[in-house]
Amino acid sequence: MIKFKIILNILGKLLVGESFFLFISLLVSLIYQGNDTTAFLKAGLVTFAVGTFSYLLSKGVQKDLGKREGYIIVSLVWVVFSMFGCLPYLFSGAIPSVTDAFFETMSGFTTTGSSILNNIEELPHGILFWRSLTQWMGGMGIIVMFLAILPTLGIGGRELFVAEVPGPAPDKLTPRIKETARNLWGLYMLFTAIETILLYAGGMSFFDAINHSLTTMATGGYSTKQASVGFYTSPYIQYTIIFFMFVAGTNFTLSYGMITGRFTKVFKDEEFRFYALVVLFFAFIITLGLIAAGSVTGEQAFRDALFTVVSIITTTGYATADYLLWSPFLGMLIFVLFFVGGSAGSTGGGVKVVRILLLFKNSFYELKRLVHPNAVIPIRYNSKVVDQRTVTNILAFFVFYILIFMMSAVLMSFWTPDIYSAFSAVATTLGNIGPGFGEIGPMENFHNLPDLAKWFLAFLMMLGRLELFTVLVLFSPAFWKH
Amino acid sequence: MIKFKIILNILGKLLVGESFFLFISLLVSLIYQGNDTTAFLKAGLVTFAVGTFSYLLSKGVQKDLGKREGYIIVSLVWVVFSMFGCLPYLFSGAIPSVTDAFFETMSGFTTTGSSILNNIEELPHGILFWRSLTQWMGGMGIIVMFLAILPTLGIGGRELFVAEVPGPAPDKLTPRIKETARNLWGLYMLFTAIETILLYAGGMSFFDAINHSLTTMATGGYSTKQASVGFYTSPYIQYTIIFFMFVAGTNFTLSYGMITGRFTKVFKDEEFRFYALVVLFFAFIITLGLIAAGSVTGEQAFRDALFTVVSIITTTGYATADYLLWSPFLGMLIFVLFFVGGSAGSTGGGVKVVRILLLFKNSFYELKRLVHPNAVIPIRYNSKVVDQRTVTNILAFFVFYILIFMMSAVLMSFWTPDIYSAFSAVATTLGNIGPGFGEIGPMENFHNLPDLAKWFLAFLMMLGRLELFTVLVLFSPAFWKH
Ligand SMILES: [K+]
Ligand SMILES: [K+]
Repeated sequence: MIKFKIILNILGKLLVGESFFLFISLLVSLIYQGNDTTAFLKAGLVTFAVGTFSYLLSKGVQKDLGKREGYIIVSLVWVVFSMFGCLPYLFSGAIPSVTDAFFETMSGFTTTGSSILNNIEELPHGILFWRSLTQWMGGMGIIVMFLAILPTLGIGGRELFVAEVPGPAPDKLTPRIKETARNLWGLYMLFTAIETILLYAGGMSFFDAINHSLTTMATGGYSTKQASVGFYTSPYIQYTIIFFMFVAGTNFTLSYGMITGRFTKVFKDEEFRFYALVVLFFAFIITLGLIAAGSVTGEQAFRDALFTVVSIITTTGYATADYLLWSPFLGMLIFVLFFVGGSAGSTGGGVKVVRILLLFKNSFYELKRLVHPNAVIPIRYNSKVVDQRTVTNILAFFVFYILIFMMSAVLMSFWTPDIYSAFSAVATTLGNIGPGFGEIGPMENFHNLPDLAKWFLAFLMMLGRLELFTVLVLFSPAFWKH
Repeated sequence: MIKFKIILNILGKLLVGESFFLFISLLVSLIYQGNDTTAFLKAGLVTFAVGTFSYLLSKGVQKDLGKREGYIIVSLVWVVFSMFGCLPYLFSGAIPSVTDAFFETMSGFTTTGSSILNNIEELPHGILFWRSLTQWMGGMGIIVMFLAILPTLGIGGRELFVAEVPGPAPDKLTPRIKETARNLWGLYMLFTAIETILLYAGGMSFFDAINHSLTTMATGGYSTKQASVGFYTSPYIQYTIIFFMFVAGTNFTLSYGMITGRFTKVFKDEEFRFYALVVLFFAFIITLGLIAAGSVTGEQAFRDALFTVVSIITTTGYATADYLLWSPFLGMLIFVLFFVGGSAGSTGGGVKVVRILLLFKNSFYELKRLVHPNAVIPIRYNSKVVDQRTVTNILAFFVFYILIFMMSAVLMSFWTPDIYSAFSAVATTLGNIGPGFGEIGPMENFHNLPDLAKWFLAFLMMLGRLELFTVLVLFSPAFWKH
């Protein structure tokens, strides 16, 4: 029997938390005296009331959360948060359509950043701040979920990233959920604060600085400018954002280690090294390609290349250059990065660097196994043997990712003008990246799609954000019969 | 130490065999009195001489073939055969460029069917016959190789398809290589002969009938008409070809069982059922789509749909309708079939139906395993438990396929006008299909690509034909140090 009462209880508490962030946006709206003040007041009150009511309705329930309740909450919270999170858009009239408002909110919480808006600079400050805040909350939520909550619930397939990255027991992050979560949250806030100061120092308005910091650390990619980060021509601002996107795409337990002085551990981490290598290699090739094409000069070519590579691999999705105008070869390099994604334990989406790394390792070892069929050849990661169960899980994840990618593209092609846009829309939402190729390039957006397509893409965002299994398990008959 | 002498010995014998087929084409040329007679005479003599010389040079060598020599021969034979097989094109001037001639020949032997020719109907009969014959030889070669030779050499990863399909020991095809090969070869010739008679009876010229039968059974797709099978508007001819393409995409040991009366075995085979189901399902959806689009009526819509689906899933690549003109959704369904391929033990290429089936099964079971992490949940195929080693190999194959697909597309995008054509060229050559999407659709071809691109695609054809591992193992350092 699934205990629905405890689900109601926890979701209720979390909704009260969401109302807190809605009230912060109300404050922003009051400071800037926008026409969105009553919208936030109403949205905050409704969310607070529903949250409190749910909590009271299920008060006194046993607190021991089972694995299956865990799975349900972990998926449901994104839907429920988006349902209430889209209220300010609807109440203020900033986004009149329910479908569009839900899409924009789910895109926020999942840190995807695909947008249906094309009048961003006309929107009131409160709305823009709330839009950035959904991403920041989503980014923090996903780190805490994957690094602190899911492992405690024994939700499988992540042992590798969680237990192995910070090393064996003694130098793990503090074992208790609350302290782990608090440490990570603190780190996340610290990075956001530093980036805000640096961007402000570089000439951004304080409002824009804080918004871009919120969406950088979440690898979300929502911008307060229609032209995204391309609006700011300052190299200082662009390099600052590049640096923080790179940090946001790094495993936060590694960053925690870095801050607390364990430098060698960080630079010896295989995932981090591979991540840095891929970024430098792709940026180098694309720089050469852009210089050869002759449209931009040295430093600008390097900056455009590095910005785009880091923005896509970390799945942030900010744009400075329009990669659709690049040559097919350079465009293809960017497309490949759509399938890499950030590091495990970062706010980045996609397949994740560690999985790609282990897929390459396993492929290489499979050839070895063919030559020596009787030898036992285990895979090592960070000097430890990876057990067969984890390898199978990673392989299965990749196969799932590709199968879902293909099947979703078939469905999407119902609604898109060409095959190319269908692939692009699926790749960018499933990978939580944001901008796409074809009709939905970095300078275009999703508002022209039919409603059904938007609901489907919103589902893909959630599926990708929760790394497939966590959601898919709910569709498995084995889950429901016990 | 790798015994190069035995490699030389076997390749020599095989070259003498190739010269035999060149002399058959010489006969065809003599019958039709084309200007290609001396070309075949020269090509046949050169091939015969080199073969005989290699054989004599290595005469008296020990006959025991090791596994590593097996791997080398299995890859090298395609290169050597293509080197000599392109001589008639060069000597007759039908294809003056060495690159183009090699491409066309490798495309023939690998049964890919991608062509650089655009004046097919102007070519002499001998040349057209040789072109079809390369596919027929390649198709037969691949069946004999995978079902008879590789298992005897203990070359891994195929236990599932080879041992399990015909059932346990008693009803295996005769255990000795020679008899197995002879049975399969006989069946292949029988099917080719029956199709020739049926096509001739349907009004095709005898020459066209035999050529199309040769390339149907090979799932090769070379046609003697520039318009491919679309040249023949007769429904009888089209349905006949559909039937034999379907047979060619079926495991030949199953067809052998069918012929020898074991009907229930065939219809209970999981791969066959899944293959038939996919064909019917896709044909059904596409028929509806074509009728809805309104350009063709009932029977024709069904025939176009079924023909295209069977042509692509079996990786034959004949064209009657131009699927590039279909809606994005229908085009996308065809694109998905590019990644399925024929059955194991058929002449079809691609990922293979059994692998796709097992990937789906494993994905489904992976969810079950997440719900019950401590339960042992094995995968069953044709009522038998599939061992973990085979599952890992299939997963690794798929990952390799996708990684190679992506990396090759990056390389190809150097040479193609857009990303789309790059993906398409790689998908169609790696899957041994023939026609592609974009600039290389079913009514277009490969002659406009630069030379380097053609060599690379020829390599991909061979890689796909030998199911990746057999070739890739040669690039593994472990293979060479012993
Ligand atoms: K994003
Ligand atoms: K073919």
